[in-house]
Amino acid sequence: MSYHPGTHIIASLTAADPGPLVQYDACKKKIDELIEKYGLQKLGEVYHNFSPAGFTAVVCLSESHLSIHTWPEYKKINLDIYLSNYQRSNDDTVTGIYEELIRFFDAMADSSHTINR
Amino acid sequence: MSYHPGTHIIASLTAADPGPLVQYDACKKKIDELIEKYGLQKLGEVYHNFSPAGFTAVVCLSESHLSIHTWPEYKKINLDIYLSNYQRSNDDTVTGIYEELIRFFDAMADSSHTINR
Repeated sequence: MSYHPGTHIIASLTAADPGPLVQYDACKKKIDELIEKYGLQKLGEVYHNFSPAGFTAVVCLSESHLSIHTWPEYKKINLDIYLSNYQRSNDDTVTGIYEELIRFFDAMADSSHTINR
Repeated sequence: MSYHPGTHIIASLTAADPGPLVQYDACKKKIDELIEKYGLQKLGEVYHNFSPAGFTAVVCLSESHLSIHTWPEYKKINLDIYLSNYQRSNDDTVTGIYEELIRFFDAMADSSHTINR
């Protein structure tokens, strides 16, 4: 018996430049594009800019959640992408979103864990 | 140079009874109590009950985030507790919240990963 486990990527990234990590506007636009492109269902979201710089994004999906926490002073990003496979397999979607966000931030992964859950 | 890494517990649990997994009201109350008890700062939240049963909770904190996804039909809970140590060490808080939520759900861990990030 399966409860439709999904895929959760937990990654720590370093960006080439702190620019896209400072505040969330461009990132929110990118995430909304990805949600539409991959046919996901957004249930709600919290975006918050910190002072003096950095942001947090937590997006609640029917399929589970995305989260991004940035530390522009260190060019660091902590990223979670977790999609369950309840109604369809989202494994390729998790990988696709991960690759697109890495490109968006112009970042490299310091570490990345993939958990099937 | 450190960017104040924190602790992220990623756990999959099985509850003794599906009762507390069906809808979010009691869980939201518990999480709000824990946020107050441990002196965390809530920035926003998304709670959603699924039809016919099960819920998702995503709580965005100044310190990072909590997420809970339940599947009462399988008595399964997927739980994330991630707190950064930006202003103080939250390592004990992560463990404390984890233990209290396990008790709240009357659950056992099927698997648990702790990531320093």
